[in-house]
Amino acid sequence: GNDRWRGAFTVHDIGVFCFTVRGWVDRFKTWRRDLECRLKAGQDLAIDLQIGAELVSEAAEAAGGAARKSLAEHAGKIREGAAGGRSASIALSPELERIMREFLPAGSIVTCRREFSVTVDRVKARFSTWYEMFPRSCGARTDGHGTFKDAEAVLPYIARMGFDVLYLPPIHPIGTTHRKGPDNTPVAGPGDPGSPWAIGSADGGHKSIHPRLGTLADFSSLMAAAAEHGIETALDIAFQCSPDHPYVTEHPEWFRRRPDGSIQYAENPPKKYQDIYPFDFETPHWRELARELRSVVFFWIEQGVRIFRVDNPHTKPFHFWEELISSVKEKYPDVIFLSEAFTRPAVMYRLAKIGFTQSYTYFTWRNTKQEIIDYFNELNREPACDFFTPNLWPNTPDILAEYLQTGGRPAFIVRLVLAATLGASYGIYGPAFELCEDRAKAPGSEEYLDSEKYRIRRWHLDDPRSLRDLITRVNRIRKENPPLHDNRNLRFHDVDNDRLLCFSKHTGEGADVILVVVNLDPHHSHGGWIDFSLPGWDVEQGRPVQMHDLLGGSRFLWGKGRNYVELNPAVVPAHIFRVRRRVRTERDFDYYL
Amino acid sequence: GNDRWRGAFTVHDIGVFCFTVRGWVDRFKTWRRDLECRLKAGQDLAIDLQIGAELVSEAAEAAGGAARKSLAEHAGKIREGAAGGRSASIALSPELERIMREFLPAGSIVTCRREFSVTVDRVKARFSTWYEMFPRSCGARTDGHGTFKDAEAVLPYIARMGFDVLYLPPIHPIGTTHRKGPDNTPVAGPGDPGSPWAIGSADGGHKSIHPRLGTLADFSSLMAAAAEHGIETALDIAFQCSPDHPYVTEHPEWFRRRPDGSIQYAENPPKKYQDIYPFDFETPHWRELARELRSVVFFWIEQGVRIFRVDNPHTKPFHFWEELISSVKEKYPDVIFLSEAFTRPAVMYRLAKIGFTQSYTYFTWRNTKQEIIDYFNELNREPACDFFTPNLWPNTPDILAEYLQTGGRPAFIVRLVLAATLGASYGIYGPAFELCEDRAKAPGSEEYLDSEKYRIRRWHLDDPRSLRDLITRVNRIRKENPPLHDNRNLRFHDVDNDRLLCFSKHTGEGADVILVVVNLDPHHSHGGWIDFSLPGWDVEQGRPVQMHDLLGGSRFLWGKGRNYVELNPAVVPAHIFRVRRRVRTERDFDYYL
Repeated sequence: GNDRWRGAFTVHDIGVFCFTVRGWVDRFKTWRRDLECRLKAGQDLAIDLQIGAELVSEAAEAAGGAARKSLAEHAGKIREGAAGGRSASIALSPELERIMREFLPAGSIVTCRREFSVTVDRVKARFSTWYEMFPRSCGARTDGHGTFKDAEAVLPYIARMGFDVLYLPPIHPIGTTHRKGPDNTPVAGPGDPGSPWAIGSADGGHKSIHPRLGTLADFSSLMAAAAEHGIETALDIAFQCSPDHPYVTEHPEWFRRRPDGSIQYAENPPKKYQDIYPFDFETPHWRELARELRSVVFFWIEQGVRIFRVDNPHTKPFHFWEELISSVKEKYPDVIFLSEAFTRPAVMYRLAKIGFTQSYTYFTWRNTKQEIIDYFNELNREPACDFFTPNLWPNTPDILAEYLQTGGRPAFIVRLVLAATLGASYGIYGPAFELCEDRAKAPGSEEYLDSEKYRIRRWHLDDPRSLRDLITRVNRIRKENPPLHDNRNLRFHDVDNDRLLCFSKHTGEGADVILVVVNLDPHHSHGGWIDFSLPGWDVEQGRPVQMHDLLGGSRFLWGKGRNYVELNPAVVPAHIFRVRRRVRTERDFDYYL
Repeated sequence: GNDRWRGAFTVHDIGVFCFTVRGWVDRFKTWRRDLECRLKAGQDLAIDLQIGAELVSEAAEAAGGAARKSLAEHAGKIREGAAGGRSASIALSPELERIMREFLPAGSIVTCRREFSVTVDRVKARFSTWYEMFPRSCGARTDGHGTFKDAEAVLPYIARMGFDVLYLPPIHPIGTTHRKGPDNTPVAGPGDPGSPWAIGSADGGHKSIHPRLGTLADFSSLMAAAAEHGIETALDIAFQCSPDHPYVTEHPEWFRRRPDGSIQYAENPPKKYQDIYPFDFETPHWRELARELRSVVFFWIEQGVRIFRVDNPHTKPFHFWEELISSVKEKYPDVIFLSEAFTRPAVMYRLAKIGFTQSYTYFTWRNTKQEIIDYFNELNREPACDFFTPNLWPNTPDILAEYLQTGGRPAFIVRLVLAATLGASYGIYGPAFELCEDRAKAPGSEEYLDSEKYRIRRWHLDDPRSLRDLITRVNRIRKENPPLHDNRNLRFHDVDNDRLLCFSKHTGEGADVILVVVNLDPHHSHGGWIDFSLPGWDVEQGRPVQMHDLLGGSRFLWGKGRNYVELNPAVVPAHIFRVRRRVRTERDFDYYL
C-alpha cells in the first residue's frame, strides 16, 4: 500500500548469510493488469495485444529450453488472435503468467548498493538452560579445594534438573598479589583461594588451568562427561590479569603505567581493585594484544569449548570484539558468545549487533508488573528482537537481588518461573539459587554473604528446602513445549490485579499455547480476572478450553471472556497452563487435546 | 543517559551544508571527574596529580601562543603542589577546564564515515501564501483571451489580499491535435482554448509563451509588476507534450512508439489522454532528454523565475529530479520547488528527501477532527518534519472537494482558516475559491463544472459574497504573528465536542501564542469546553489571560482549566485567538500585552 514490500527466504545452515534487494519494472504484469481494465471497458485491444505479444517474444529470446518454445508459441497465438480478437484469454492465462514470472528483463534490474547480512546460529543460541557453578566448591572434604573430578560427580544432579549448559567461572591460575580475602576484604589469609577473575600466576595465564582444579586432561574429561549428560560446558572469558600474570612481565607494553613506574590497576574511583590489571587497548601494541587474546579463545575452542560467557565486554573496544567474533565464526559458526554487559542499553544493543549471540539483561532488577511488561515489550519487539537475544538470570555470583533477599522461598520460585518462561534462554547461579541462599553481605548490598567469589562453599544439595524438584519440573515443561523456545511470541494479557502478571507464548496460529500467571507478591495471596484472547483461538468461538497447569497438575475449564485465578505464594505462586482444546471423536466422545 | 548526544550549529546562509560527527576520549575531563571522587574519599592524590600534570603538559605542547604558556604554568603548579598537596584546587579550576577544552588529543579522534547534509532554504520555503490564477481568464472583454497585461491589472487585487506567490498554470503554446473541449469532452470546438497542460504547438514548446498571452517581454513586465507588489511569480513545470510539440518531430526517440507506428499517449487504463504524450524516461537517449528538460528550468530561471510548481513529479524517475534540483540549487540556492505528487506517502516523502522544497498534501481530503489531528501530527513530527514541508490547498483546478460542494460559504471559510493556520505555507486556486465556486461537473466528481482547465472563465471579483475581505484579514494575521510562520510548533488541544477542532502554535517558550478554534460543521452551531495549557504559560499560574479574536475582533477572559467556546457557522465558524497576558504597570494599572 505504501511501497513497503516483504520478502522471505529460508536458511538451511548456520553461518553468516548475505542478501540484497533487486527491483525491476515488471512490464508484462503491468501490461496484463491494464489489459484486464481495457477488456472490462470493452475497448479495441488489437494494438495492446500486439504490445503484449512483443513482450512475450522478448522473454522467449532470453529464455532457453522448453520455456523458450512455450513462450514463442504463446506469443504467436496472441498475435494470431489479435487479428481475430480471440487472444485476450491466452494473454491472461495463468500458465503464461507463471512462465513469464521466471524471466527478468535484462538490463533494467536495479540492485541495492548495500549488502545485508543475517547470522544464523544453532538452536541453542535461542533456547538454552544454564547452570553456573564454581567447581572448587564441589569438593567432598570440608576444607578441600574441589576439582574437575569432583565437579564430574555433580553432573547427574545438574542434568536431572534439566540444564543443558554448565557455565564455569574462570578456571585459570589465580594471582596472590593483593589477593582478596573473604567477603572482598583487602587482605587474604594463607588459606583463602582468591577470586577466579584475578587471572594469572606463576602457574600460567588464560591458557592454563588452576593446578588445584586439575589438568587439561581432567577438563576434557569433565567436558566429555557433561556431553554424555546432554550438557555443554561454557567457559568465562575475562580479559584482565592479576599482577602475577605472565603477561605482566612478558608484555609490560600491554598495560598502562603510572608516573611512579607501577602498573595501573583497575579502578572505579574512589574504588580500587589492586588485584586486577586491565589491558590497555590504546597501547601502540594493540594489534599484538588483540592477536594474543584471540588466540586464547581459539585455544579453548580447540579443546572443544563452543560456548563462552564474556566478562564485561563493554570495557573493551567494540572493534576488538567485532574482529574476534567474526574471525571465530568464520571457522566455527557454532560458537556462542554470551555478553555480560550490565551497562547502558545502547551499548548492550551495540554489542549484540557486532556479534554477541546472547546477552545478560536488566531482568534481575525488573520486579513489578509494569516494569516487566515494559521491559519485555521492548526486548521482544522490533528493532531489539532483530539483533538482541536475552538470557535471563534471577541471580549471579555478583547479584543477590533485593527481591530474593526479602521474599523467601516464594520469591525464588517467582523469579525462576519468570526467567524460565519469559525467556527462551535463562540461567541460575547454583547451588545458591536452588538452596534459596538469601543472606546478603550487608543491608542494601546485592553481594552475597560468604560470597563464593572469595571463598570455597560447601553446599548441602539434599536440603529438603531445595527447589531442585520444582526446577526439574519447570525445565521439563520448557523442553516439552515449543512455545517456550521462542521470545518474539510473548504477549501480555490484562489482569485486574497489579500483583498478578499474565502472559502467553504460542506457536504458529495459536496451535500450541502456554499461558503463565504469576503472583508477584511473595507474601500474600492474590486473585484476579484475566482477559485472555489470541487470534484464531477457540475460546473466541464460545467453546471452553481446558487450562492444564503443568506446574501444579490441576485442570480448569475456561470460557469466553474473563476467567478468575487465585494464587497463594505459600503453596505455589504461579501457574504454567497448557491450553487444551476440546476435540470430538468420531464416536461423539469429547476430550481435550 | 543512553549514549545519545545532541549538538547544534547555526547556519548563516542559504545552500547545502555538510557536517559529520567526531568523537574522542576526553582524558582530562575523565581524570578531573575521578579526581573529585578521590578527593571526597580523602585518598592520597600524589600520583593522580602527576598523571593530570602530564595531561596538561601534553596539551601545552600541542597548543600555541598564550594557551601554551598558560597550560605549561598550570602543569608546573600542579606538579609543585603535588609534593605539597595544594594543587587539587588548581587542577580542578574552571579556568584550566576552559583552556583544556580547546585542545583535542591528536591521533585519537574518530570521525564518522558518513557525511550528512542539511539544505538551508530562504524563509519563503517555509512561510509562503500562494494564489493560483489562469491569466487567460483575466481578459476584460466577454469573449476575449486574457493576456499577461490583463493579469497585471489584477495584481493589486491579489496583493491586497496578502498573497506573496502568484502561481500561473503552464503559459506555453497549447496543442490542437486531440484538444479537449469544455468539461474535458473529447472534441474541441474552434473557439475552445484547450488545456494549458497539453504543452506545445507550431508556436513552440516549453521555452515559448502562448502567443495570445503575450511575449517574453510581457511576461517579464508581469513579473516585475508583481515584484513591486511583493509577489513572486511561480511557474508550472509539466514535463509532457501535446502531439504538436516540436520535440515530437525533432526527438521522436524521447517517446515510446506503439506497434502501429504511432506514439504512445498518456493512459491510466481504461482512461486515455490522447492530447498528452509522456516522455519515455527509459529511452536509451534519456541523458539527452534529461539535459534538455534541465535546460527548460534554467531558461525560466534566467528570466528571473525562482519558484516552480512541478506537475506530477512522481511519474518521472527520482534520480532525474535529484540531479535536476541539485544542479539548479548549486547555482541558484534560492529556487523553490513545490511537488504536486498526490500519491503514496512513501513516494511523496522520497521526493521531499531528494530535493523538493515543498509538497502538496492530503489536506484537501482530511475533513473530520480525528483525520486532521492524525495527519498533522504525522506531518509535523519527526521524522516527516525533518524533510517534508507541507503546502496546504483547500482547492486546486483539479480538486473541488466534496466538503466545499456541500458546505456553502461557511465551508470555504473553515477550509481557508485551517489551511492558513495549520500550515505555514498554503494556497488557494482563485478567483474560484474566494467567489465560493462550488458547482461540480457531476455528483460524486471533484472536477469543477465549466472547469477553467478547458475554457476561459469570466470572474466577478466584486461579488458581495466574495471572501476577499476575510482572506485579507487571515493573511494579515498570518503576517503579523510569528507562531503562524512555522509548522513544528503545532499542538492540538482537547475539546469535548467532535465538531470543534482546537490547536495552538507558539514561538519560543510560549511568548507568543495563537490559538485557533474551528467549527468543522458548516451547517450547525457547536459549543464545547476547551482544555488548553502550554508549558510555562500564565494560565497555569492561575492568572487569567485575554483571548483576543483577531478574526472577529472580540476579546474574552480565560481562566485556568477549561473554557467554553461556541461557534455559529452562519456568523463565522472560527476564532483565531491571540493570547494576551496581563501586565501590571509601575502605577498598578493592568493591561493585556
